[in-house]
Amino acid sequence: MLKGLLADLVENFKRLPGIGTKSAERIALYLISENKKNAMELAGSIRKCVEEYKNCSICNMLSEHDPCSFCSDSNRLDSLLCIVENTQDVYLIEDTHEFKGKYFVLGKLLSPLDGIGPDQIKFPQLQALVDTGNIAEVILALNPSAEGESTMNFLGAQLGKKVARITRLSTGLPFGGDIEYTSSLTLSNALKRRYSIKDE
Amino acid sequence: MLKGLLADLVENFKRLPGIGTKSAERIALYLISENKKNAMELAGSIRKCVEEYKNCSICNMLSEHDPCSFCSDSNRLDSLLCIVENTQDVYLIEDTHEFKGKYFVLGKLLSPLDGIGPDQIKFPQLQALVDTGNIAEVILALNPSAEGESTMNFLGAQLGKKVARITRLSTGLPFGGDIEYTSSLTLSNALKRRYSIKDE
Repeated sequence: MLKGLLADLVENFKRLPGIGTKSAERIALYLISENKKNAMELAGSIRKCVEEYKNCSICNMLSEHDPCSFCSDSNRLDSLLCIVENTQDVYLIEDTHEFKGKYFVLGKLLSPLDGIGPDQIKFPQLQALVDTGNIAEVILALNPSAEGESTMNFLGAQLGKKVARITRLSTGLPFGGDIEYTSSLTLSNALKRRYSIKDE
Repeated sequence: MLKGLLADLVENFKRLPGIGTKSAERIALYLISENKKNAMELAGSIRKCVEEYKNCSICNMLSEHDPCSFCSDSNRLDSLLCIVENTQDVYLIEDTHEFKGKYFVLGKLLSPLDGIGPDQIKFPQLQALVDTGNIAEVILALNPSAEGESTMNFLGAQLGKKVARITRLSTGLPFGGDIEYTSSLTLSNALKRRYSIKDE
Protein backbone atom coordinates (compact mmCIF):
# COMPACT_ATOMS: atom_id res chain seq x y z
CA MET A 1 0.00 0.00 0.00
CA LEU A 2 2.90 2.42 0.57
CA LYS A 3 3.75 4.55 -2.47
CA GLY A 4 6.51 6.78 -3.80
CA LEU A 5 9.74 7.33 -1.87
CA LEU A 6 8.49 5.33 1.08
CA ALA A 7 7.83 2.31 -1.17
CA ASP A 8 11.43 2.59 -2.45
CA LEU A 9 12.67 2.70 1.14
CA VAL A 10 10.68 -0.45 1.95
CA GLU A 11 12.16 -2.22 -1.10
CA ASN A 12 15.66 -1.22 0.01
CA PHE A 13 15.06 -2.62 3.50
CA LYS A 14 13.57 -5.84 2.15
CA ARG A 15 16.91 -6.69 0.50
CA LEU A 16 18.51 -6.98 3.95
CA PRO A 17 18.81 -10.44 5.51
CA GLY A 18 15.95 -11.33 7.85
CA ILE A 19 13.75 -8.35 6.91
CA GLY A 20 10.35 -9.17 5.39
CA THR A 21 7.69 -6.84 3.99
CA LYS A 22 5.98 -6.21 7.35
CA SER A 23 9.23 -5.40 9.18
CA ALA A 24 10.42 -3.22 6.30
CA GLU A 25 7.19 -1.20 6.35
CA ARG A 26 7.33 -0.83 10.11
CA ILE A 27 10.95 0.36 10.01
CA ALA A 28 10.33 2.75 7.11
CA LEU A 29 7.39 4.41 8.86
CA TYR A 30 9.37 4.52 12.11
CA LEU A 31 12.26 6.29 10.39
CA ILE A 32 10.14 9.08 8.96
CA SER A 33 7.89 9.51 11.99
CA GLU A 34 9.99 9.11 15.12
CA ASN A 35 13.45 10.54 15.53
CA LYS A 36 14.59 11.99 12.18
CA LYS A 37 18.04 12.64 13.63
CA ASN A 38 18.44 8.90 14.27
CA ALA A 39 17.40 8.17 10.69
CA MET A 40 19.97 10.57 9.27
CA GLU A 41 22.64 9.07 11.54
CA LEU A 42 21.76 5.61 10.26
CA ALA A 43 22.05 6.76 6.64
CA GLY A 44 25.38 8.44 7.36
CA SER A 45 26.67 5.41 9.21
CA ILE A 46 25.85 3.08 6.29
CA ARG A 47 27.64 5.37 3.82
CA LYS A 48 30.67 5.70 6.05
CA CYS A 49 31.02 1.94 6.62
CA VAL A 50 30.64 1.13 2.93
CA GLU A 51 33.29 3.72 2.11
CA GLU A 52 35.75 2.80 4.85
CA TYR A 53 35.61 -0.99 5.03
CA LYS A 54 38.10 -2.78 2.80
CA ASN A 55 39.44 -6.32 2.61
CA CYS A 56 42.57 -6.79 4.73
CA SER A 57 45.50 -7.43 2.38
CA ILE A 58 46.75 -10.27 4.60
CA CYS A 59 43.69 -12.21 5.78
CA ASN A 60 41.02 -10.82 3.41
CA MET A 61 38.59 -9.94 6.20
CA LEU A 62 36.58 -6.71 5.99
CA SER A 63 38.20 -4.09 8.18
CA GLU A 64 38.50 -0.36 8.73
CA HIS A 65 42.27 -0.70 8.81
CA ASP A 66 44.76 -2.55 6.63
CA PRO A 67 46.20 -4.79 7.99
CA CYS A 68 43.19 -5.57 10.19
CA SER A 69 43.25 -5.55 13.99
CA PHE A 70 43.65 -9.36 14.07
CA CYS A 71 46.59 -9.51 11.67
CA SER A 72 48.37 -6.66 13.47
CA ASP A 73 47.78 -8.07 16.96
CA SER A 74 51.11 -9.43 18.20
CA ASN A 75 49.37 -11.22 21.08
CA ARG A 76 47.75 -13.65 18.65
CA LEU A 77 49.58 -16.82 17.63
CA ASP A 78 50.98 -16.85 14.08
CA SER A 79 51.28 -20.63 14.25
CA LEU A 80 47.49 -21.22 14.29
CA LEU A 81 45.45 -20.25 11.23
CA CYS A 82 41.68 -20.52 11.19
CA ILE A 83 40.08 -20.45 7.74
CA VAL A 84 36.49 -19.18 7.63
CA GLU A 85 33.99 -18.38 4.91
CA ASN A 86 33.22 -14.76 5.81
CA THR A 87 33.96 -11.88 8.17
CA GLN A 88 30.89 -12.61 10.26
CA ASP A 89 32.28 -16.08 11.09
CA VAL A 90 35.40 -14.44 12.54
CA TYR A 91 33.25 -12.59 15.07
CA LEU A 92 31.22 -15.71 15.89
CA ILE A 93 34.44 -17.61 16.65
CA GLU A 94 35.78 -14.67 18.65
CA ASP A 95 32.63 -14.82 20.79
CA THR A 96 33.62 -18.34 21.94
CA HIS A 97 36.90 -16.98 23.42
CA GLU A 98 38.43 -20.36 22.41
CA PHE A 99 40.76 -19.21 19.66
CA LYS A 100 43.86 -17.03 19.91
CA GLY A 101 45.40 -17.57 16.46
CA LYS A 102 45.03 -15.70 13.17
CA TYR A 103 42.27 -15.88 10.56
CA PHE A 104 41.89 -16.15 6.82
CA VAL A 105 38.58 -15.23 5.17
CA LEU A 106 37.77 -17.04 1.90
CA GLY A 107 34.79 -14.81 1.10
CA LYS A 108 33.09 -17.70 -0.70
CA LEU A 109 33.07 -21.48 -0.83
CA LEU A 110 34.10 -23.48 -3.91
CA SER A 111 31.20 -24.02 -6.26
CA PRO A 112 32.35 -24.87 -9.80
CA LEU A 113 28.78 -24.76 -11.15
CA ASP A 114 28.48 -21.13 -10.05
CA GLY A 115 31.92 -20.33 -11.47
CA ILE A 116 33.55 -20.11 -8.04
CA GLY A 117 37.00 -21.67 -8.27
CA PRO A 118 40.28 -21.30 -6.33
CA ASP A 119 40.83 -17.69 -7.50
CA GLN A 120 37.42 -16.57 -6.21
CA ILE A 121 38.11 -18.02 -2.76
CA LYS A 122 41.43 -16.10 -2.68
CA PHE A 123 43.50 -19.28 -2.72
CA PRO A 124 46.63 -17.55 -4.13
CA GLN A 125 46.49 -15.03 -1.25
CA LEU A 126 46.03 -17.88 1.25
CA GLN A 127 48.94 -19.78 -0.29
CA ALA A 128 51.19 -16.72 0.00
CA LEU A 129 50.25 -16.42 3.67
CA VAL A 130 50.98 -20.10 4.33
CA ASP A 131 54.29 -19.88 2.43
CA THR A 132 55.62 -16.90 4.38
CA GLY A 133 54.20 -17.93 7.76
CA ASN A 134 55.33 -20.39 10.32
CA ILE A 135 52.00 -22.18 10.54
CA ALA A 136 51.78 -25.36 12.63
CA GLU A 137 48.04 -25.95 12.28
CA VAL A 138 45.33 -24.88 9.89
CA ILE A 139 41.75 -25.13 11.19
CA LEU A 140 39.11 -25.39 8.47
CA ALA A 141 36.09 -23.77 10.16
CA LEU A 142 33.67 -24.14 7.25
CA ASN A 143 30.05 -25.27 7.08
CA PRO A 144 29.50 -29.04 6.83
CA SER A 145 27.54 -28.42 3.58
CA ALA A 146 28.25 -29.71 0.06
CA GLU A 147 30.24 -26.57 -0.83
CA GLY A 148 31.95 -26.52 2.56
CA GLU A 149 32.98 -30.18 2.28
CA SER A 150 34.43 -29.77 -1.22
CA THR A 151 36.26 -26.61 -0.16
CA MET A 152 37.71 -28.46 2.86
CA ASN A 153 38.76 -31.34 0.60
CA PHE A 154 40.49 -28.95 -1.78
CA LEU A 155 42.22 -26.93 0.94
CA GLY A 156 43.20 -30.07 2.85
CA ALA A 157 44.86 -31.54 -0.25
CA GLN A 158 46.58 -28.30 -1.28
CA LEU A 159 47.77 -27.11 2.12
CA GLY A 160 48.60 -30.62 3.37
CA LYS A 161 51.93 -30.44 1.57
CA LYS A 162 53.02 -27.39 3.55
CA VAL A 163 51.32 -27.58 6.95
CA ALA A 164 51.88 -30.36 9.49
CA ARG A 165 48.40 -30.38 10.98
CA ILE A 166 45.08 -29.62 9.30
CA THR A 167 41.87 -29.92 11.31
CA ARG A 168 38.18 -29.28 10.81
CA LEU A 169 35.44 -28.42 13.32
CA SER A 170 33.86 -31.35 15.10
CA THR A 171 30.59 -32.66 13.69
CA GLY A 172 27.82 -34.29 15.75
CA LEU A 173 24.76 -33.45 17.81
CA PRO A 174 24.44 -29.77 18.71
CA PHE A 175 24.14 -29.02 22.46
CA GLY A 176 20.50 -28.52 23.35
CA GLY A 177 19.52 -30.48 20.26
CA ASP A 178 17.15 -33.41 20.28
CA ILE A 179 17.96 -36.79 18.72
CA GLU A 180 14.32 -37.05 17.61
CA TYR A 181 14.70 -33.99 15.40
CA THR A 182 18.23 -34.68 14.20
CA SER A 183 18.78 -35.56 10.54
CA SER A 184 19.74 -39.13 9.79
CA LEU A 185 23.04 -37.94 8.30
CA THR A 186 23.95 -36.05 11.48
CA LEU A 187 22.98 -38.99 13.67
CA SER A 188 24.90 -41.55 11.60
CA ASN A 189 27.96 -39.27 11.71
CA ALA A 190 27.54 -38.81 15.48
CA LEU A 191 27.48 -42.60 15.91
CA LYS A 192 30.61 -43.07 13.80
CA ARG A 193 32.43 -40.31 15.67
CA ARG A 194 31.28 -41.40 19.16
CA TYR A 195 33.89 -40.90 21.89
CA SER A 196 34.63 -42.72 25.09
CA ILE A 197 33.62 -41.24 28.43
CA LYS A 198 34.84 -44.31 30.35
CA ASP A 199 37.64 -46.66 29.28
CA GLU A 200 39.13 -49.31 31.51
CA MET B 1 32.73 -7.77 19.47
CA LEU B 2 32.45 -5.45 16.46
CA LYS B 3 34.45 -2.24 16.81
CA GLY B 4 34.75 1.20 15.26
CA LEU B 5 32.45 2.35 12.48
CA LEU B 6 30.82 -1.05 12.24
CA ALA B 7 29.91 -0.95 15.95
CA ASP B 8 28.30 2.48 15.34
CA LEU B 9 26.34 1.02 12.42
CA VAL B 10 25.12 -1.84 14.62
CA GLU B 11 24.02 0.64 17.30
CA ASN B 12 22.14 2.65 14.68
CA PHE B 13 20.33 -0.45 13.44
CA LYS B 14 19.50 -1.59 16.98
CA ARG B 15 17.40 1.55 17.47
CA LEU B 16 14.98 0.34 14.79
CA PRO B 17 11.83 -1.52 15.87
CA GLY B 18 12.18 -5.31 15.88
CA ILE B 19 15.96 -5.31 15.35
CA GLY B 20 18.05 -6.94 18.08
CA THR B 21 21.83 -7.18 18.45
CA LYS B 22 22.16 -10.37 16.37
CA SER B 23 20.07 -9.06 13.47
CA ALA B 24 21.82 -5.69 13.57
CA GLU B 25 25.26 -7.36 13.37
CA ARG B 26 24.11 -9.62 10.52
CA ILE B 27 22.72 -6.67 8.57
CA ALA B 28 25.78 -4.48 9.18
CA LEU B 29 28.18 -7.17 7.95
CA TYR B 30 25.90 -7.89 5.00
CA LEU B 31 25.92 -4.22 3.99
CA ILE B 32 29.69 -3.91 3.90
CA SER B 33 30.35 -7.32 2.36
CA GLU B 34 27.67 -8.04 -0.23
CA ASN B 35 26.33 -5.47 -2.63
CA LYS B 36 27.78 -2.07 -1.74
CA LYS B 37 25.56 -0.42 -4.35
CA ASN B 38 22.49 -1.68 -2.47
CA ALA B 39 23.88 -0.29 0.77
CA MET B 40 24.43 3.15 -0.74
CA GLU B 41 20.92 3.09 -2.22
CA LEU B 42 19.51 2.26 1.21
CA ALA B 43 21.40 5.18 2.79
CA GLY B 44 20.22 7.52 0.03
CA SER B 45 16.64 6.32 0.32
CA ILE B 46 16.57 6.94 4.09
CA ARG B 47 17.89 10.50 3.65
CA LYS B 48 15.42 11.25 0.87
CA CYS B 49 12.43 9.99 2.83
CA VAL B 50 13.40 11.87 5.96
CA GLU B 51 13.84 15.05 3.92
CA GLU B 52 10.67 14.72 1.82
CA TYR B 53 8.05 13.36 4.24
CA LYS B 54 6.08 16.02 6.09
CA ASN B 55 2.88 16.03 8.12
CA CYS B 56 -0.19 16.70 5.97
CA SER B 57 -1.60 20.10 6.98
CA ILE B 58 -5.14 18.71 6.97
CA CYS B 59 -5.00 15.21 8.48
CA ASN B 60 -1.51 15.28 10.05
CA MET B 61 -0.38 12.02 8.39
CA LEU B 62 3.16 11.72 7.06
CA SER B 63 3.15 12.21 3.32
CA GLU B 64 5.33 13.20 0.37
CA HIS B 65 2.70 15.70 -0.71
CA ASP B 66 0.65 18.30 1.16
CA PRO B 67 -2.29 17.73 1.24
CA CYS B 68 -1.74 13.98 1.29
CA SER B 69 -3.18 11.58 -1.28
CA PHE B 70 -6.07 10.68 1.07
CA CYS B 71 -7.14 14.27 1.78
CA SER B 72 -6.95 15.20 -1.90
CA ASP B 73 -8.84 12.11 -3.09
CA SER B 74 -12.33 13.25 -4.14
CA ASN B 75 -13.53 9.64 -4.28
CA ARG B 76 -13.29 9.34 -0.52
CA LEU B 77 -16.23 10.35 1.68
CA ASP B 78 -15.81 13.60 3.61
CA SER B 79 -18.66 12.59 5.89
CA LEU B 80 -16.70 9.73 7.53
CA LEU B 81 -13.64 10.55 9.61
CA CYS B 82 -11.43 7.83 11.06
CA ILE B 83 -9.11 8.95 13.86
CA VAL B 84 -5.94 6.87 14.28
CA GLU B 85 -2.82 7.10 16.40
CA ASN B 86 -0.19 7.07 13.64
CA THR B 87 0.45 6.91 9.90
CA GLN B 88 1.10 3.17 10.02
CA ASP B 89 -2.45 2.60 11.31
CA VAL B 90 -3.80 4.35 8.20
CA TYR B 91 -2.13 1.75 5.99
CA LEU B 92 -3.30 -1.13 8.19
CA ILE B 93 -6.90 0.08 7.88
CA GLU B 94 -6.47 0.61 4.12
CA ASP B 95 -5.38 -3.04 3.86
CA THR B 96 -8.82 -4.13 5.10
CA HIS B 97 -10.52 -2.36 2.11
CA GLU B 98 -13.40 -1.65 4.52
CA PHE B 99 -13.07 2.11 4.83
CA LYS B 100 -13.60 4.79 2.19
CA GLY B 101 -13.67 7.92 4.33
CA LYS B 102 -10.95 10.35 5.43
CA TYR B 103 -8.40 10.04 8.22
CA PHE B 104 -6.96 12.10 11.01
CA VAL B 105 -3.64 11.11 12.60
CA LEU B 106 -3.17 12.11 16.25
CA GLY B 107 0.53 11.20 16.30
CA LYS B 108 0.28 10.29 19.99
CA LEU B 109 -2.25 9.24 22.60
CA LEU B 110 -3.13 11.36 25.63
CA SER B 111 -0.82 10.68 28.54
CA PRO B 112 -0.82 13.53 31.08
CA LEU B 113 1.99 11.93 33.12
CA ASP B 114 4.27 12.08 30.05
CA GLY B 115 3.20 15.64 29.30
CA ILE B 116 1.05 14.64 26.34
CA GLY B 117 -2.10 16.77 26.39
CA PRO B 118 -4.63 17.92 23.76
CA ASP B 119 -2.08 20.12 21.94
CA GLN B 120 0.36 17.24 21.49
CA ILE B 121 -2.32 15.06 19.91
CA LYS B 122 -3.14 17.91 17.47
CA PHE B 123 -6.58 18.45 18.95
CA PRO B 124 -6.83 22.08 17.70
CA GLN B 125 -6.11 20.87 14.14
CA LEU B 126 -8.70 18.08 14.50
CA GLN B 127 -11.24 20.57 15.84
CA ALA B 128 -10.67 22.88 12.87
CA LEU B 129 -11.22 19.93 10.52
CA VAL B 130 -14.43 18.94 12.29
CA ASP B 131 -15.65 22.56 12.32
CA THR B 132 -15.15 23.11 8.60
CA GLY B 133 -16.21 19.63 7.50
CA ASN B 134 -19.59 18.06 7.05
CA ILE B 135 -18.80 15.02 9.18
CA ALA B 136 -21.62 12.60 9.96
CA GLU B 137 -19.55 10.00 11.84
CA VAL B 138 -16.22 9.95 13.62
CA ILE B 139 -14.64 6.51 14.12
CA LEU B 140 -12.15 6.33 16.99
CA ALA B 141 -9.76 3.60 15.78
CA LEU B 142 -7.44 3.65 18.78
CA ASN B 143 -5.87 0.88 20.85
CA PRO B 144 -8.01 -0.46 23.70
CA SER B 145 -5.16 0.43 26.11
CA ALA B 146 -5.20 2.82 29.08
CA GLU B 147 -3.96 5.74 26.92
CA GLY B 148 -6.27 4.75 24.06
CA GLU B 149 -9.31 4.61 26.34
CA SER B 150 -8.64 7.98 27.92
CA THR B 151 -8.03 9.53 24.50
CA MET B 152 -11.31 8.05 23.23
CA ASN B 153 -13.12 9.40 26.32
CA PHE B 154 -11.66 12.85 25.75
CA LEU B 155 -12.39 12.94 22.00
CA GLY B 156 -15.85 11.46 22.48
CA ALA B 157 -16.75 14.19 24.98
CA GLN B 158 -15.23 17.03 22.95
CA LEU B 159 -16.42 16.02 19.49
CA GLY B 160 -19.79 14.75 20.69
CA LYS B 161 -21.10 18.32 20.70
CA LYS B 162 -20.42 18.72 16.98
CA VAL B 163 -20.75 15.27 15.40
CA ALA B 164 -23.93 13.20 15.37
CA ARG B 165 -22.33 9.78 15.54
CA ILE B 166 -19.10 8.75 17.26
CA THR B 167 -18.03 5.09 17.16
CA ARG B 168 -15.09 3.01 18.31
CA LEU B 169 -13.71 -0.28 16.97
CA SER B 170 -15.40 -3.42 18.26
CA THR B 171 -13.70 -5.21 21.16
CA GLY B 172 -13.86 -8.96 21.77
CA LEU B 173 -12.11 -12.20 20.86
CA PRO B 174 -9.70 -11.92 17.92
CA PHE B 175 -10.39 -14.33 15.03
CA GLY B 176 -8.10 -17.33 15.30
CA GLY B 177 -7.68 -16.59 19.01
CA ASP B 178 -8.23 -19.17 21.72
CA ILE B 179 -10.48 -18.58 24.73
CA GLU B 180 -7.99 -20.51 26.85
CA TYR B 181 -5.29 -17.92 26.18
CA THR B 182 -7.53 -14.85 26.28
CA SER B 183 -7.11 -12.37 29.13
CA SER B 184 -9.88 -12.26 31.70
CA LEU B 185 -10.56 -8.61 30.79
CA THR B 186 -11.05 -9.47 27.10
CA LEU B 187 -13.25 -12.42 27.92
CA SER B 188 -15.42 -10.50 30.38
CA ASN B 189 -15.81 -7.74 27.77
CA ALA B 190 -16.66 -10.32 25.08
CA LEU B 191 -19.37 -11.76 27.35
CA LYS B 192 -20.84 -8.33 28.04
CA ARG B 193 -20.79 -7.43 24.34
CA ARG B 194 -22.13 -10.81 23.14
CA TYR B 195 -24.44 -10.55 20.13
CA SER B 196 -27.34 -12.65 18.96
CA ILE B 197 -26.95 -15.08 16.08
CA LYS B 198 -30.56 -16.34 16.44
CA ASP B 199 -33.51 -14.37 17.81
CA GLU B 200 -37.11 -15.56 17.65
